[in-house]
Amino acid sequence: MDVISVIRTKRDRQRLSDDQIDWVIDAYTRGAVADEQMSALAMAILLNGMDRAEIARWTAAMINSGERMDFSSLDRPTADKHSTGGVGDKITLPLAPLVAACGAAVPQLSGRGLGHTGGTLDKLESIPGWRASLSNDEMLGVLGDTGAVICAAGDGLAPADKKLYALRDVTGTVEAIPLIASSIMSKKIAEGTGSLVLDVKVGSGAFMKSLDDARELASTMVGLGTDHGVRTVALLTDMSVPLGLTAGNALEVRESVEVLAGGGPADVVELTLALAREMLLAAGLPDADPAKALADGSAMDVWRRMIRAQGGDPAAPLPVARETHVVAAPSSGVLTALDAYAVGIAAWRLGAGRARKEDSVQAGAGVQLHAKPGDSVVAGQPLLTLHTDTPEKFAYAEEALADAFSVSAPDTPFSARPIVLDRIA
Amino acid sequence: MDVISVIRTKRDRQRLSDDQIDWVIDAYTRGAVADEQMSALAMAILLNGMDRAEIARWTAAMINSGERMDFSSLDRPTADKHSTGGVGDKITLPLAPLVAACGAAVPQLSGRGLGHTGGTLDKLESIPGWRASLSNDEMLGVLGDTGAVICAAGDGLAPADKKLYALRDVTGTVEAIPLIASSIMSKKIAEGTGSLVLDVKVGSGAFMKSLDDARELASTMVGLGTDHGVRTVALLTDMSVPLGLTAGNALEVRESVEVLAGGGPADVVELTLALAREMLLAAGLPDADPAKALADGSAMDVWRRMIRAQGGDPAAPLPVARETHVVAAPSSGVLTALDAYAVGIAAWRLGAGRARKEDSVQAGAGVQLHAKPGDSVVAGQPLLTLHTDTPEKFAYAEEALADAFSVSAPDTPFSARPIVLDRIA
Repeated sequence: MDVISVIRTKRDRQRLSDDQIDWVIDAYTRGAVADEQMSALAMAILLNGMDRAEIARWTAAMINSGERMDFSSLDRPTADKHSTGGVGDKITLPLAPLVAACGAAVPQLSGRGLGHTGGTLDKLESIPGWRASLSNDEMLGVLGDTGAVICAAGDGLAPADKKLYALRDVTGTVEAIPLIASSIMSKKIAEGTGSLVLDVKVGSGAFMKSLDDARELASTMVGLGTDHGVRTVALLTDMSVPLGLTAGNALEVRESVEVLAGGGPADVVELTLALAREMLLAAGLPDADPAKALADGSAMDVWRRMIRAQGGDPAAPLPVARETHVVAAPSSGVLTALDAYAVGIAAWRLGAGRARKEDSVQAGAGVQLHAKPGDSVVAGQPLLTLHTDTPEKFAYAEEALADAFSVSAPDTPFSARPIVLDRIA
Repeated sequence: MDVISVIRTKRDRQRLSDDQIDWVIDAYTRGAVADEQMSALAMAILLNGMDRAEIARWTAAMINSGERMDFSSLDRPTADKHSTGGVGDKITLPLAPLVAACGAAVPQLSGRGLGHTGGTLDKLESIPGWRASLSNDEMLGVLGDTGAVICAAGDGLAPADKKLYALRDVTGTVEAIPLIASSIMSKKIAEGTGSLVLDVKVGSGAFMKSLDDARELASTMVGLGTDHGVRTVALLTDMSVPLGLTAGNALEVRESVEVLAGGGPADVVELTLALAREMLLAAGLPDADPAKALADGSAMDVWRRMIRAQGGDPAAPLPVARETHVVAAPSSGVLTALDAYAVGIAAWRLGAGRARKEDSVQAGAGVQLHAKPGDSVVAGQPLLTLHTDTPEKFAYAEEALADAFSVSAPDTPFSARPIVLDRIA
């Protein structure tokens, strides 16, 4: 077996054999296949595709590159969620304690943000004292005690994916459905959850810009999960506008706590409940009532215990950016568009995200929205507030927002897009 | 400018802009673009192509990555030849002194072999004392004194190509017409020849297996040369059977000397004369008579002076392999096929070629043919003789030859393919 013949096979639009896939993933993990060889193969896969059986084998090989976790000692069913990432997507924060409050165990191994979408761990790290890195024993302890844990994935899970993900990030090979699906699912299957709900984002702020691509990604992942004995369902959800009214780290934690307190923006509440219902159904708890767990404070109780168990102080004031700048509505009328991607880029430029893995993020930076599409606005009213510790970035952030929104005549009819666009099981 | 946007442009089937090409070639040469990024771009170029204007700019950027040579101080016109490589292709050896004997200056910057095609420098290094590496001054000296020089290209010519060529070799991205054409032509244009004849091989033993691909490569290269003021013409020549009766290093030198002595296999003589006529025509010497220069010994005189000028002894006995093994004709009849690729692989396995750049080659190893397609053979007569210093490789070489030849009934009609298939100017 040699790597050039593997690359040529895919380059020449043929199927990779099981042996070729097993060999190349193992050899890459060991360092016997070099980065420049794997990136050529990744580009060939991006352009020429893989069929379902190839993707399944590729995923299995990445799972087998590392350890698998085991939650069978827990006294309740496990349910996990994965989002493909969007602007203002803080849903994991209220969702994990909410589903735990309804009786499932929720192990959320999460990542940091890169580019225009924020990372769950970056958001939680704005809570004073909170720690993302736990040993496997600590993780199982928090999960057993509180029902939910959100922490960094250990190095032992799917190391082949860890290496390949970092490579794809710098070689223009992120946007390949077979590679996205196998990356996500190898980690989730190795993690050992019994059920999994996928939130596949569609729209300008998401990786998947079209419903067709999102549907293909979702059904590929549902197939992979099901094949490995994980009850898997996917919701396709809208990411053409930001979720909620905030994009940033501490800003999004604050909004998440509002949801747990029974308030919060309608779209965030709606999506949180829709995902909670799917997770509880997949976990075999169809009678649980997540709306009640939000209303009666039981979800908030789990949140507080979970934050405390990882060293955080849920009552401590959250960091606030040193400077703010208001972007005003240019005219009166109906706000008919507010582009998710542009808001994500603006938040990133203000310091909420990172350009390189080694960069740090500002806890207080981000964008706060004062109106959403469909709302009436008056000329000069605040439309957005930009938050940052580095005010020299305001102009750079505003540049990203130049074409981000449009205000139409007051009587323009507007029909809102639903949050959940489709369900694939 | 950032590399990921350049990769994405080609990945998404768009044209690379002049600025993108200039930037990425310069940044790669400087090390600011990493190998794994360039290999992803190379695979995207292989699969999505480049148009003529992109290829021209890419070639110019590679020329500009290094120094250019200047032969204007010579008192005669320069003519160069490049072959895309084939099995038994020793043509450079008799051709360079022959064209010099007819009045042109022939600077042949050549390479070493990798894989199943031999390298001109490897062949000449089987001559005791002969040195491939010359300084620029030494090279100009030999060229001025003898009219011809065959030596290694210096590190200063098209360093971007040097780096990219080595990368393509290990990433399955060799077989891309835009990259092959720009690689060859950037070196030849930087070298500063006034005219250039391209020998584009077609057939099993060549990179280009089909006449259409070869024609596209040839016309791409002719266009690039013409655009840069180099009078360029290409011959498409057959590489479905090995050239001549030998594939190996010292074996091919011996055959080349036979041609210079007025003998040698008919196909080698025919192709040598065809290429010589094209070179002399392109160099503005249409009245020169290369057949006469072979017959009257003047080409042999230049050969001896040229070899001596680089430290070699043209009269010294050539190395001979320690062991030989005969492959006999399995039946009587007409030899109707003798596959160039299989013979090339056999010669390589016997030690004539290298698997990695750092390997050495055996001077005496190779394959000697006792019949060519069209010849009548008798069962049991020697068909091939294998030569090697490592006789444990005989079985491995014979394996490559298993389906290499076929002997048909004695009365089978056979029509030979011409050597020169087409001419593109």
